[in-house]
Amino acid sequence: MKAQVLHKYDDDLTASSWVDYIDVPDPIITKGSDVIIRIGGAGVCRTDLHVIEGIWRPHMDPTGNELLPFILGHENAGWIEDVGPEVVGLKKGDPVIVHPKISNGTCLACRRGEDMHGEGTFPGLDSNGGYAEALVTSERNIIKLPKSLLPKEVAPYSDAGLTAYRAAKKATRHLLPGQYCVVIGAGGLGHIAIQVLRAMCAAEIIVVDTSAASLELAGKCGADHLVRADGGEVDAVLSLTKGHGAEAVLDFVGENGTTRKGLEMTRAAGSYYVVGYGENIQVPTVDLVISEKNIIGNLVGTWAELTELMELANRGLVDLTTKEYALSDANTALRDLHQGKIHGRAVLIP
Amino acid sequence: MKAQVLHKYDDDLTASSWVDYIDVPDPIITKGSDVIIRIGGAGVCRTDLHVIEGIWRPHMDPTGNELLPFILGHENAGWIEDVGPEVVGLKKGDPVIVHPKISNGTCLACRRGEDMHGEGTFPGLDSNGGYAEALVTSERNIIKLPKSLLPKEVAPYSDAGLTAYRAAKKATRHLLPGQYCVVIGAGGLGHIAIQVLRAMCAAEIIVVDTSAASLELAGKCGADHLVRADGGEVDAVLSLTKGHGAEAVLDFVGENGTTRKGLEMTRAAGSYYVVGYGENIQVPTVDLVISEKNIIGNLVGTWAELTELMELANRGLVDLTTKEYALSDANTALRDLHQGKIHGRAVLIP
Amino acid sequence: MKAQVLHKYDDDLTASSWVDYIDVPDPIITKGSDVIIRIGGAGVCRTDLHVIEGIWRPHMDPTGNELLPFILGHENAGWIEDVGPEVVGLKKGDPVIVHPKISNGTCLACRRGEDMHGEGTFPGLDSNGGYAEALVTSERNIIKLPKSLLPKEVAPYSDAGLTAYRAAKKATRHLLPGQYCVVIGAGGLGHIAIQVLRAMCAAEIIVVDTSAASLELAGKCGADHLVRADGGEVDAVLSLTKGHGAEAVLDFVGENGTTRKGLEMTRAAGSYYVVGYGENIQVPTVDLVISEKNIIGNLVGTWAELTELMELANRGLVDLTTKEYALSDANTALRDLHQGKIHGRAVLIP
Amino acid sequence: MKAQVLHKYDDDLTASSWVDYIDVPDPIITKGSDVIIRIGGAGVCRTDLHVIEGIWRPHMDPTGNELLPFILGHENAGWIEDVGPEVVGLKKGDPVIVHPKISNGTCLACRRGEDMHGEGTFPGLDSNGGYAEALVTSERNIIKLPKSLLPKEVAPYSDAGLTAYRAAKKATRHLLPGQYCVVIGAGGLGHIAIQVLRAMCAAEIIVVDTSAASLELAGKCGADHLVRADGGEVDAVLSLTKGHGAEAVLDFVGENGTTRKGLEMTRAAGSYYVVGYGENIQVPTVDLVISEKNIIGNLVGTWAELTELMELANRGLVDLTTKEYALSDANTALRDLHQGKIHGRAVLIP
Repeated sequence: MKAQVLHKYDDDLTASSWVDYIDVPDPIITKGSDVIIRIGGAGVCRTDLHVIEGIWRPHMDPTGNELLPFILGHENAGWIEDVGPEVVGLKKGDPVIVHPKISNGTCLACRRGEDMHGEGTFPGLDSNGGYAEALVTSERNIIKLPKSLLPKEVAPYSDAGLTAYRAAKKATRHLLPGQYCVVIGAGGLGHIAIQVLRAMCAAEIIVVDTSAASLELAGKCGADHLVRADGGEVDAVLSLTKGHGAEAVLDFVGENGTTRKGLEMTRAAGSYYVVGYGENIQVPTVDLVISEKNIIGNLVGTWAELTELMELANRGLVDLTTKEYALSDANTALRDLHQGKIHGRAVLIP
Repeated sequence: MKAQVLHKYDDDLTASSWVDYIDVPDPIITKGSDVIIRIGGAGVCRTDLHVIEGIWRPHMDPTGNELLPFILGHENAGWIEDVGPEVVGLKKGDPVIVHPKISNGTCLACRRGEDMHGEGTFPGLDSNGGYAEALVTSERNIIKLPKSLLPKEVAPYSDAGLTAYRAAKKATRHLLPGQYCVVIGAGGLGHIAIQVLRAMCAAEIIVVDTSAASLELAGKCGADHLVRADGGEVDAVLSLTKGHGAEAVLDFVGENGTTRKGLEMTRAAGSYYVVGYGENIQVPTVDLVISEKNIIGNLVGTWAELTELMELANRGLVDLTTKEYALSDANTALRDLHQGKIHGRAVLIP
Repeated sequence: MKAQVLHKYDDDLTASSWVDYIDVPDPIITKGSDVIIRIGGAGVCRTDLHVIEGIWRPHMDPTGNELLPFILGHENAGWIEDVGPEVVGLKKGDPVIVHPKISNGTCLACRRGEDMHGEGTFPGLDSNGGYAEALVTSERNIIKLPKSLLPKEVAPYSDAGLTAYRAAKKATRHLLPGQYCVVIGAGGLGHIAIQVLRAMCAAEIIVVDTSAASLELAGKCGADHLVRADGGEVDAVLSLTKGHGAEAVLDFVGENGTTRKGLEMTRAAGSYYVVGYGENIQVPTVDLVISEKNIIGNLVGTWAELTELMELANRGLVDLTTKEYALSDANTALRDLHQGKIHGRAVLIP
Repeated sequence: MKAQVLHKYDDDLTASSWVDYIDVPDPIITKGSDVIIRIGGAGVCRTDLHVIEGIWRPHMDPTGNELLPFILGHENAGWIEDVGPEVVGLKKGDPVIVHPKISNGTCLACRRGEDMHGEGTFPGLDSNGGYAEALVTSERNIIKLPKSLLPKEVAPYSDAGLTAYRAAKKATRHLLPGQYCVVIGAGGLGHIAIQVLRAMCAAEIIVVDTSAASLELAGKCGADHLVRADGGEVDAVLSLTKGHGAEAVLDFVGENGTTRKGLEMTRAAGSYYVVGYGENIQVPTVDLVISEKNIIGNLVGTWAELTELMELANRGLVDLTTKEYALSDANTALRDLHQGKIHGRAVLIP
């Protein structure tokens, strides 16, 4: 089959191309629970650029270049092509979305439903991913799609959308009417989070972004208040919240000072959710003690949460803006993403 | 002042009139935290009929007729008329809604925020209520209204609405996308519950009622599925929920067999919420064990929950249908309620 | 191998023997995730008597005698004998306990960690169980035992203990210092629950039982107050709880009037947990509404909860009293159980 | 009456004495809900030294020295001396402990039970405290003591103990058997937290401290594992927790590098609780994202939580080591604390 393969890291992202469109062997079934997916769409994620830069090398490839070459792509959807002998209930042609983590299903984390905290692999980061015509994964990773959803339209939900969903869902578990939720960054993840908050709680939603276009999108997604991040955004949020700050702040940026500002926008006894990353959090212990604020880390969601998100999508309660590229144009898509030219999410179509 | 006073019980509700419109002494401030309200509206509730019937006598008036005469009315809103010397932040003319329970504020239940489980009085059931030109209550019971809300429009929220809110809110704390909530009875409480569910979770809402008019109202309130209670309602709900039943069932009827049917509509590991009352629940213990279902009792909500409900009302996320009567026409309003002629809630206007 | 096989039901438990000790084919590996256990001990449970009586026929064998003959025994522990080709981390000789439900691991209930609510089989109730020299089960059902725990000593934890653990654990999630927990019935399940409560919360524990011997055992398990169920037990509990009742009541009997009494012992806003079964719960809806009490159903626990219980056992925080019988004496053990001669739990040893 | 009064700040704590033992006017009842306490004991807290240093000036006395002079002491217990006309259920001579925050009881935070997040005063920090023969406070702050507890023995529970209780209680709400809790610092707060953990959950408790004497105390309080903080404490904790870290880490130090080490000791998906303060937390956002760890701020507990702690004390489940000083020797007690000479908590006795 054809695939986009990463052969070497590029520390400063200056190479003229990063992945090579070549013939590779078709994936094969080796375990009873294996599943082969014909890719319908593969999301292009900033994390892919981070993999190319080598940021994930210390975690995934610590001893050198043993991981290379491999196929990128961790946001995958498509159709069942083949299944192992112990797979039940899936047949060729079923449209599916693929949870990004192949967990073992037997460790305590998996057994408590927290798949992504179990042991396992993450295709596209530590093994062959979905920038390809096909992908091998496990029965455990598959969610069948309802008729209303096409693989290429939902592929980015499997990681970006699922991460936004999990963080927003955590906030909805404690947000009550009369309370506020700030969303910092109304990009690929943020615009999903706004819709999730709108669907699952009655808090007033305040969106903070540097871009007028993103704020406009936020308004369409259901934000109650739009705040331009022009330096006065903390004061603006405090003003909207009667001086107290918001009970929940979801930070999808995590750099350029948003961590300090996000904590300042958080009300006493409230929670600041870290989703975007880049800078260090720096906060005096005494500030957390006096205010009793919480800082909540957020990873991608569980398989069960991906089913919940697909329900929201199926009912039209969340909607994802995508831009399509041919699989053969992966370098273009990556470059557009690197240059900030993509609104919503890019998806590669084989 | 003028008030509608109950002088004697009427076991079978056959008397030609139940309350007497007479002159009574004005309420007075006796404690530092007392507050006098000029009534803007007093909701007429089925519980008022139950009080007239004497159903509450064993609880409120066990030794005979010592409680009588007293003024009915436990769903009150109006304007501050006067305050005791230790009341802070309230002044004459402020529009307010009144939480129905005057709790002491010092017992452990109150200190944990569960006011209605503390000791205290319940004006309109065990002392003079709001079928009158004025009412004395406590600073602890007052919630100031935003400009958008008129007392006569919100009075029924203080008990009926608050009870519906609390039950629905409990369900929203565990309902997830892809799950179902059944509402049995789309009357005064049920139509509020539907709107609360719509605002605070993304479960699909199935409404069951015997009346086509109520189902039509349910549809306007945001129900996803309408089921006529014609004997086949359990099968209809099971069919809508893929044979499993709903994760939450809110029963606002509690008689005529709804308890058995409600439990049958409840999914394994789900919860059946009792709000309406009348009949006995009868269920084999083995059924609860095999299915791990829960039966959840529901009382009126807390003061904090009434502020939450007012936020929903202020933002237009819940809306209450009311029918106005002059205070002098209380008997007419009660009779109309008794005869099923009121859609939404009746409110007495002094 | 040798096994104790049920060939026919005995409605009134009057037959001279119920199971037949015969040669049956050895269990074999048919799926990649299969595991064969050499039985070290198989708990004898009242549910086994209920199976023999045919109480479970409507659920497990609705079309007649298609299920028979089969091997009883759903509380099993032993050593790994053989594993399928896809089983990782288990090898011959490992001491293990077996979760009773073979769930598929792929449905939404399983993926949320609630295995016992997923689809699957229950060996000993609907397929061959552990009254035998060996048992085939799944990798998903296995928990490795620490060195301190012998299979024959822990077998009854896998169902009886796990059910008691789950109910008690639910209560510990809301019980606070200064609150009370009533345990009705200090038998096989109840004496485990007392120890779990003692280990996991600081509520005062009140144990109610008809038997002086059981109350003595309850005291050794850590009960704070012992109440003889002689007709005055409701008053005794109300007196111990300052007239209010207990925030949690765990009923391990569920017949002979304990459901009514258990609810009367439950404090307003408290929860009554149904574990034992037999009679019907009968309660007026108005009582649940005024008091806001909850009735909580309880099934066996999850795989993860069985690991938690094994941790408690390993650390000596719970201890199980067992009485050993040879596997060939299964009828004697069942008869002793039927006649109330067993204190603690009977275990069959091959 | 006699009292110890702070007349001026001492930035570097080098003055020969800090408070002056002088005659001041007796406190008087001015509001219906006021209560005057005859002090039985007043705890001496490191926060008192921080007040003397002026660390709290920006919060409590921002415009200069307007706050001075005032009486220190925010950990108070004694006997009711007099009550305002609206106080019910308290009479002269009742032994009581005093919650440190005088909240108004009417704001939303108070009404939800989170008193310490409401508006109000904090005697000993922003108004006259309990380094005196008597103190005026509010009915809302009083908890009656059972006969088993003497005021001078429990005074430090009202702030130090209550803060430790709240943090430990939060951890017990999620800690399960088989999980670990690390306590960093087994001093005045830490040794209470260990006992609370022991009483309210079954996690294994690992205590980390620089002092052998503190570790010995920790062992007596119920710690399962003692780790000397000699530079290798992170490795030691990882080793005890099979390489994963602990599900909860309670840090009662918050300086000298414990924040970094505490986070390193925290397992993925676990929570690090900040109680002690001094240094800044510095953590890369990516670390919180990959691990999904939480950082939880902790303030003093609620009034209801102080009743819970008194229940634990009354039942002997927590025990506090105190050292008595005469009220006239307050400077000595403060100096001993400053010089690290006090094990347990110092208490001033009028």
